[in-house]
Amino acid sequence: MKKFVKQTDTPVDVEALARDILTGSRIALARGITLIESQRANHHEQAQKLLQSVLPHTGSSLRIGITGVPGAGKSTFIEAFGKMLCDAGFHVAVLAIDPTSSRSGGSILGDKTRMEQLVKEPHAFVRPSPTSGTLGGVHKKSRETMLLCEAAGYDVILIETVGVGQSETTVRGMTDFFLLLTLTGAGDELQGMKKGIMELTDAIIVHKADGANESFAKKTVSEYKQILHFIQPATDGWTPRALPVSSYQQTGLDEVWSMIQEFQQVTMKSGQFTTRRANQQREWFQQSVTDELVRRFFADGEKKKHMKELEQQVADAKLTVEQALAKLFTSSHDEKSDTIQL
Amino acid sequence: MKKFVKQTDTPVDVEALARDILTGSRIALARGITLIESQRANHHEQAQKLLQSVLPHTGSSLRIGITGVPGAGKSTFIEAFGKMLCDAGFHVAVLAIDPTSSRSGGSILGDKTRMEQLVKEPHAFVRPSPTSGTLGGVHKKSRETMLLCEAAGYDVILIETVGVGQSETTVRGMTDFFLLLTLTGAGDELQGMKKGIMELTDAIIVHKADGANESFAKKTVSEYKQILHFIQPATDGWTPRALPVSSYQQTGLDEVWSMIQEFQQVTMKSGQFTTRRANQQREWFQQSVTDELVRRFFADGEKKKHMKELEQQVADAKLTVEQALAKLFTSSHDEKSDTIQL
Repeated sequence: MKKFVKQTDTPVDVEALARDILTGSRIALARGITLIESQRANHHEQAQKLLQSVLPHTGSSLRIGITGVPGAGKSTFIEAFGKMLCDAGFHVAVLAIDPTSSRSGGSILGDKTRMEQLVKEPHAFVRPSPTSGTLGGVHKKSRETMLLCEAAGYDVILIETVGVGQSETTVRGMTDFFLLLTLTGAGDELQGMKKGIMELTDAIIVHKADGANESFAKKTVSEYKQILHFIQPATDGWTPRALPVSSYQQTGLDEVWSMIQEFQQVTMKSGQFTTRRANQQREWFQQSVTDELVRRFFADGEKKKHMKELEQQVADAKLTVEQALAKLFTSSHDEKSDTIQL
Repeated sequence: MKKFVKQTDTPVDVEALARDILTGSRIALARGITLIESQRANHHEQAQKLLQSVLPHTGSSLRIGITGVPGAGKSTFIEAFGKMLCDAGFHVAVLAIDPTSSRSGGSILGDKTRMEQLVKEPHAFVRPSPTSGTLGGVHKKSRETMLLCEAAGYDVILIETVGVGQSETTVRGMTDFFLLLTLTGAGDELQGMKKGIMELTDAIIVHKADGANESFAKKTVSEYKQILHFIQPATDGWTPRALPVSSYQQTGLDEVWSMIQEFQQVTMKSGQFTTRRANQQREWFQQSVTDELVRRFFADGEKKKHMKELEQQVADAKLTVEQALAKLFTSSHDEKSDTIQL
């Protein structure tokens, strides 16, 4: 497996790379992603050129987000589901968002033995999304990586998230369909999940529905169906569903895919599919602008230190928020500060 | 009733006003709030001085947020509950957050006939929180108004929100205890509520539990108890409760108050009460900093126009988000723009 090419100082021929990616070369795709993930300033510029040239060829995949409680078997599900899609003729890319993982050159999801079957599939591409610790980094790189996969002809993108920090919201914000994997015992399971997770999902899968567990899983599915009645749907015009799946016995996977296809038809017809995509783009941009403003403002280390001090004084009720704001912005060397009414 | 004093150009004697507020003068309190809500630059400065001088006398009240579906009877509940508290010797202030209401000089919650009984109580103070249309305005003014009420000796603050936009999250972010008022029919009722509302609440009240409705209300309470089992608590160490209340028959109000007192004891003991307050202050400040940065950046009308254009291009996949960002920040006249690596 030579999928992960090490980043070097050699200048990148962006045009050739874009061409190779568009023909479906996995080596080129891996190289493109490495370029996107690079922290070097010159790589950054090249990555943006690359994205711009492939941009017209993006957007035609189905983007599926997958989250779940620890131990729910996300990787096993993705492997079985991805393999089924490959067998049906689809090209499947798997990305993982894990805000806690640090860069681990070339390892797949931090564990080379995971998704053994899927990585061997000629129509599958499995890639972790290592981060630099910040969530801003996560969504920026992951979204761009997703676009590159689409340009390389992958028509189903599976994005796995471990559910740390805001990662589920991030993944919901970049996908068309969002799946929650759970185990039997509905409510008890969900106690370990984050608040509002049910409101993000288009479907709940009760996993490991096999052997002695099968009847429990079916009972849990009915319990979820009841709960889902009380939750506002994540997608207008789509009532979230619950269904049992065994990746081990490969049962229920077909039903998941039929459901997602039905979802796509319904939301395409209503316009919700396209509207959500456009809104996701808009929100990504708006959030990026805010992130950039905050980043710039606190690029000055003194400002950051001052902020921390003021925060403490505000928390101790020694300063009102307005006063703290005034102090923070008055200390600014920004030319506009004296014209601002705080 | 001369509670609402019109704003004039006469300079305000801030020290005298602070003194009068601290002695519990309702006229002074109303005047102070008017000063806080004023848009005039000189009033703004005086308002900040006023807040600073009363700041050491704030923070000792119990802050209770109340939201509910339209028609759930929020005003009726607040009137009955507030009156009961006044009878028990408490001083009760009622604030309302309604992002849709515009300034309506002196009207109480937009309707002079609402809370008729409560406004007559010598120990009650009822005040709408008119906004200037922006949510930023809502939370800023409302939080400051709340502080002023505390300085005036009100020991229970009831903050009502109609649940438009982000107002529930705003009210949750400034209160100790958050109540959701509903009617019978649990799930069906909640269909009209916003996503994630259950995750914000410390208790759900099934209101109008009287007459023929009483048995239905009790059934709904049991249904909610079931649902609450599946929802992560809004407050660490407190399992949200559901209970029936009739404001008309004045039943269940005692239980609500006992519950809130128990909540206070539990969270005071665990430290969660104090921690949440400090975190709320920190978050308010952090959000204010971000709001201010965005406000300053877009103070230039051209910039705002440019942003809209870029947003559209991003939504249409004509530009990558990074490219749009680069364009937005390059067009900036900010001195720092050329040193930023985008």
